[in-house]
Amino acid sequence: MSNSLGTIFKITSFGESHGPSIGIVIDGCPAGLVIDSDFIQSELLRRRPGQSKITTARNETEAFEIISGVFEGKSTGAPITIIIANSDARSKDYDHNVKVYRPSHADYTYQEKYGHRDHRGGGRTSARITAGWVAAGAIAKQILAHKKINVQAYVSQVGTVKLETPYTSLDLSKTESNMVRCPDEAVANKMIALIEQTKKDGDTIGGVVSCVVSNMPVGLGEPVFNKLHAGLGHAMLSINAVKGVEFGSGFEGSAMKGSEHNDLFEPGVKISTQTNHSGGIQGGISNGEDVVFSVAFKPVATIMKEQATVDEFGKAAIIKGKGRHDPCVVPRAVPIVESMAAIVLADFVLRAQSTTLEH
Amino acid sequence: MSNSLGTIFKITSFGESHGPSIGIVIDGCPAGLVIDSDFIQSELLRRRPGQSKITTARNETEAFEIISGVFEGKSTGAPITIIIANSDARSKDYDHNVKVYRPSHADYTYQEKYGHRDHRGGGRTSARITAGWVAAGAIAKQILAHKKINVQAYVSQVGTVKLETPYTSLDLSKTESNMVRCPDEAVANKMIALIEQTKKDGDTIGGVVSCVVSNMPVGLGEPVFNKLHAGLGHAMLSINAVKGVEFGSGFEGSAMKGSEHNDLFEPGVKISTQTNHSGGIQGGISNGEDVVFSVAFKPVATIMKEQATVDEFGKAAIIKGKGRHDPCVVPRAVPIVESMAAIVLADFVLRAQSTTLEH
Amino acid sequence: MSNSLGTIFKITSFGESHGPSIGIVIDGCPAGLVIDSDFIQSELLRRRPGQSKITTARNETEAFEIISGVFEGKSTGAPITIIIANSDARSKDYDHNVKVYRPSHADYTYQEKYGHRDHRGGGRTSARITAGWVAAGAIAKQILAHKKINVQAYVSQVGTVKLETPYTSLDLSKTESNMVRCPDEAVANKMIALIEQTKKDGDTIGGVVSCVVSNMPVGLGEPVFNKLHAGLGHAMLSINAVKGVEFGSGFEGSAMKGSEHNDLFEPGVKISTQTNHSGGIQGGISNGEDVVFSVAFKPVATIMKEQATVDEFGKAAIIKGKGRHDPCVVPRAVPIVESMAAIVLADFVLRAQSTTLEH
Amino acid sequence: MSNSLGTIFKITSFGESHGPSIGIVIDGCPAGLVIDSDFIQSELLRRRPGQSKITTARNETEAFEIISGVFEGKSTGAPITIIIANSDARSKDYDHNVKVYRPSHADYTYQEKYGHRDHRGGGRTSARITAGWVAAGAIAKQILAHKKINVQAYVSQVGTVKLETPYTSLDLSKTESNMVRCPDEAVANKMIALIEQTKKDGDTIGGVVSCVVSNMPVGLGEPVFNKLHAGLGHAMLSINAVKGVEFGSGFEGSAMKGSEHNDLFEPGVKISTQTNHSGGIQGGISNGEDVVFSVAFKPVATIMKEQATVDEFGKAAIIKGKGRHDPCVVPRAVPIVESMAAIVLADFVLRAQSTTLEH
Repeated sequence: MSNSLGTIFKITSFGESHGPSIGIVIDGCPAGLVIDSDFIQSELLRRRPGQSKITTARNETEAFEIISGVFEGKSTGAPITIIIANSDARSKDYDHNVKVYRPSHADYTYQEKYGHRDHRGGGRTSARITAGWVAAGAIAKQILAHKKINVQAYVSQVGTVKLETPYTSLDLSKTESNMVRCPDEAVANKMIALIEQTKKDGDTIGGVVSCVVSNMPVGLGEPVFNKLHAGLGHAMLSINAVKGVEFGSGFEGSAMKGSEHNDLFEPGVKISTQTNHSGGIQGGISNGEDVVFSVAFKPVATIMKEQATVDEFGKAAIIKGKGRHDPCVVPRAVPIVESMAAIVLADFVLRAQSTTLEH
Repeated sequence: MSNSLGTIFKITSFGESHGPSIGIVIDGCPAGLVIDSDFIQSELLRRRPGQSKITTARNETEAFEIISGVFEGKSTGAPITIIIANSDARSKDYDHNVKVYRPSHADYTYQEKYGHRDHRGGGRTSARITAGWVAAGAIAKQILAHKKINVQAYVSQVGTVKLETPYTSLDLSKTESNMVRCPDEAVANKMIALIEQTKKDGDTIGGVVSCVVSNMPVGLGEPVFNKLHAGLGHAMLSINAVKGVEFGSGFEGSAMKGSEHNDLFEPGVKISTQTNHSGGIQGGISNGEDVVFSVAFKPVATIMKEQATVDEFGKAAIIKGKGRHDPCVVPRAVPIVESMAAIVLADFVLRAQSTTLEH
Repeated sequence: MSNSLGTIFKITSFGESHGPSIGIVIDGCPAGLVIDSDFIQSELLRRRPGQSKITTARNETEAFEIISGVFEGKSTGAPITIIIANSDARSKDYDHNVKVYRPSHADYTYQEKYGHRDHRGGGRTSARITAGWVAAGAIAKQILAHKKINVQAYVSQVGTVKLETPYTSLDLSKTESNMVRCPDEAVANKMIALIEQTKKDGDTIGGVVSCVVSNMPVGLGEPVFNKLHAGLGHAMLSINAVKGVEFGSGFEGSAMKGSEHNDLFEPGVKISTQTNHSGGIQGGISNGEDVVFSVAFKPVATIMKEQATVDEFGKAAIIKGKGRHDPCVVPRAVPIVESMAAIVLADFVLRAQSTTLEH
Repeated sequence: MSNSLGTIFKITSFGESHGPSIGIVIDGCPAGLVIDSDFIQSELLRRRPGQSKITTARNETEAFEIISGVFEGKSTGAPITIIIANSDARSKDYDHNVKVYRPSHADYTYQEKYGHRDHRGGGRTSARITAGWVAAGAIAKQILAHKKINVQAYVSQVGTVKLETPYTSLDLSKTESNMVRCPDEAVANKMIALIEQTKKDGDTIGGVVSCVVSNMPVGLGEPVFNKLHAGLGHAMLSINAVKGVEFGSGFEGSAMKGSEHNDLFEPGVKISTQTNHSGGIQGGISNGEDVVFSVAFKPVATIMKEQATVDEFGKAAIIKGKGRHDPCVVPRAVPIVESMAAIVLADFVLRAQSTTLEH
């Protein structure tokens, strides 16, 4: 396995869904940063299960402890370790998938690769472990705050309900005002209704999270194999259930002509562009415009319906979802997307400082 | 900069468009591999400029030299270095963009980040450097051949012309039979016509390359931060002009329900799935089905029309494309996508050997 | 900071001397390994303070908890996290070095580099954190046991008392039979007497730990920048108070002639050498002979005598050691040297599996 | 294999002794650095074979070409690739060691590990490849010059002839005034005489190179697994024929008491120490004093005498050295030690810039 991410600001993730706790080690956080525990807690609560009627009923308080790297409220430069307790794990709910593989879950691939696996609650494959990522993301956001960089994600699609408004016409401050985390209230209500109906049907539904990073400096990104969007893309594709990522115009841009797509420069003291089809990145380096990307989530694999499957010997079997699961992950994925973006950006910010002789 | 990619099978890229040569160092290639120079050459020719009327007119023979790591026709385990000469560079064509930034190019971001840049032919930002990646990809494919793994890409979209047929109904062996590299001849002809018209208009057009990796073993991928699709996605997003990547159902999957999307297991001695919305990867680990993904390319930024832009002082200027450029990159991107996929897969194949005590 | 070590078998260290606990994350441990908790405990007890009259009086039970990566007694392939409580920290003992720098300690360099530091018990610079390394080393040794590789260290020098006998004439199984961990009883007694006298004088003394890795396979090592001895040397130089490392003939070999130093091959089915001046490594790769090296430890910096020093403003001050410290570190360094060697070797063993196409 | 070194300033080495050329890729060199080709050449000539009667007779002009990363005489931030031709390789001299293993060479270990090897001139194991390291070191020194850091090595021992004078009493500017590179003329003459006699005897002799890094900033080093001396030690142990490395008091310090060894701080505006047993590093971080270390080289394995050995089947054989070899490597190792030190220090200097929020 490979559970570390980053070059300078580097996180190492550990823990399983039904172990005593999950956690994260954050290496490379500069010393002297005031660590805002309330902010870490509030970020964890944004991701927490059981936060609304459209999320899983698992009930976690997301109590956490910082056991290293912080002294008198400030980072020391030593690795920061945060432990988050698993308080509401119900392992018995998962006895049914010891020997029978859940469709579109990682039961089979883990069993084949590792031979021995912790099946309880999905073990290492559970989205539970992203709580540690969100804790690290909260610290990364505090680093970005020093540079005034702001990371803001929102739900732009649930199933077939799409928010078509471009982000520049949205009031992103409204994202947290509803339980689905869509900044347009009318669309949000449709999304909520769709999720509720889907849940009632014992089914699940996919969605898309979009993310905007504003107040970007020019110059983040390390071509050719650590381009800013490649780093962000790698992080997004690490999130459970993600099947795609696109920057700026993304897949729609493939249908466009150069004369339409090119972002013309706007004269001025600070150089800017008239449009932002590039999503704020050119040649793998940020150009100072907003970094904009979208992340596609597939529907949750666990459904409350009977499905044909196989057991570990390849024999036919029937499985029906148990345990507590989200009917749609994207509302809770919003802070996860933000956190992974912040972790990557903090690394690029610090790394960019080492590319010059001027310091 | 960060010009290395991989953990065990690791490539280091170097060179600029108008330097004497570009190249690649391949570290971690197992010893004893017969290095097929003819195959390297044929792969380079698939990527070469000037190969047809719908590609750039730059004329490179793609002559290469292996200067290390191969002895008596076989790899020695030492780093393999391949140098590819730049024989047809016309640096004067680029005098106009020394002081004036080309829209949606990396002139501005490189200038801001590095202060000092080789502007000739795009320097380090040129797709010319992907010739080295293709040479490394040719060797990676020879490693994959030992495991019978096959990587095959094709053009699935040019502008608004889409190949809607699922890959399972295509004869991918026909991909190389036409100059746009689309395995469906009728669609290929439409694509070619669109590119020709676009070129005539002095414009450029985007497109999509899809890729299928068949005969995959179960078990490639290193969760949670080196998942197979995250590794592939990182590599794809490193390719010039790429703005998005999606696996299996991708963005379309976000509109689906779990009951539709789940890939039900098929009973049998070798476990398989009835559908492949997962794109051959579950939990970040290959499940033995074909790995399937698509890569979105934006239109080439250099167009033969006048565009408003700015100079290095932020003052308004006019620029018109010079130099020799592709009207659409996707035909030549097919071998690049395959190569980057092969490089990533070779790394994962070798790395998977180190995750067990059984050897 | 940079608190991870290894490529495949990778450890991440965290924690401070007077925090709630210290710990380690072990990534890349193959799945299915039976984790022997009793062995981890016994290794921790070999390193534990307060184990004899010649070690520090700090009294730790070295109680540990494995909070991830192990299920039903076996590794799952997921990161293994081990937490070891700090139960007997007395932070008040360290109030004196908040503002005054202890000579030859890292107070000054940490203060200058990080600005903000946890001074209590040395914080991150304390040898306390090596408890986590020993826990990881215990697991690494279990991996090596699969290959029959055995790592055994012993004290070969305390101050001017040297064990001159070559290791091949020693019975290394006697190492643990005395409190100084020297396999020659007569020399051990001299060493113990010297340490006791030194302690009585309020002083400290340096020493050397030698290490023998037997039953080595041929072929471990990844030239040219990850040679086996470079990897081992890096790990040894990471241990607190280490100032030097040498392999085989080491510094003495510099005085020798080639005709004396060369290890002549011995004919036979299994190729071996008549002597082992090379320390089991040629060209950075193990040759199947015992890997042999020695590690030099400086005397502990904290002495119970008054010393001239400066405060944080560079003003003259007087300091006298407080807290509980070892008069000589080498007895407790024996399991640390073994552990770091085992961690490095486990990484090389696993990595060597990825250098061939034969699997 | 693993042929890259460094995190930010990263080198990738390639090439074999008797291939067409050897070389180096330098990634992470900041843009805008004036690349002094004359200095690179002069450094290569310091390492070059055939420079005096006490070195090997192989005659290389060390002609080099920079094929990437430099534009108009300055670095661009892109990877810098330097190719150095092998002009005087005589491969026939090595026919004798195809099937017979040279004692204390890497013939056997490479054959066992890789199965297939380039035996000519030692192939990848030859010290010839350090020419690339010296070229990279020349650029690293130019980075260090921006910080006024100076790296200076010298020969402190040849066989039993030792330079006992502490470096603070030596005039290091005299190092290059004699062919053995020892700054004390009388000792140098003894060393030269010893090497000449050894050569006449058909034998070889070991030696020690010492290195002093002056004008060090406080704060270089990344504990706990990338301490400054661990990084330097790793690099030194990567040099051919090195069997040991020690910092400051090194192995002698193991015989000392804390009250003797501690470096007392000297009051003053800039804090300094009265002695430097620590070798300029405390807790893995530079303290502003000179960084001082010594590197032990074993005698060259190739001697012009008959030695008993075995062939690839383990059968007894006789071998006698052919080819052109140094009777003692340390004179030519001086620039290699300096270069590897400079490469490591440049990486630490750049990396230190990313450990703060102040930039």
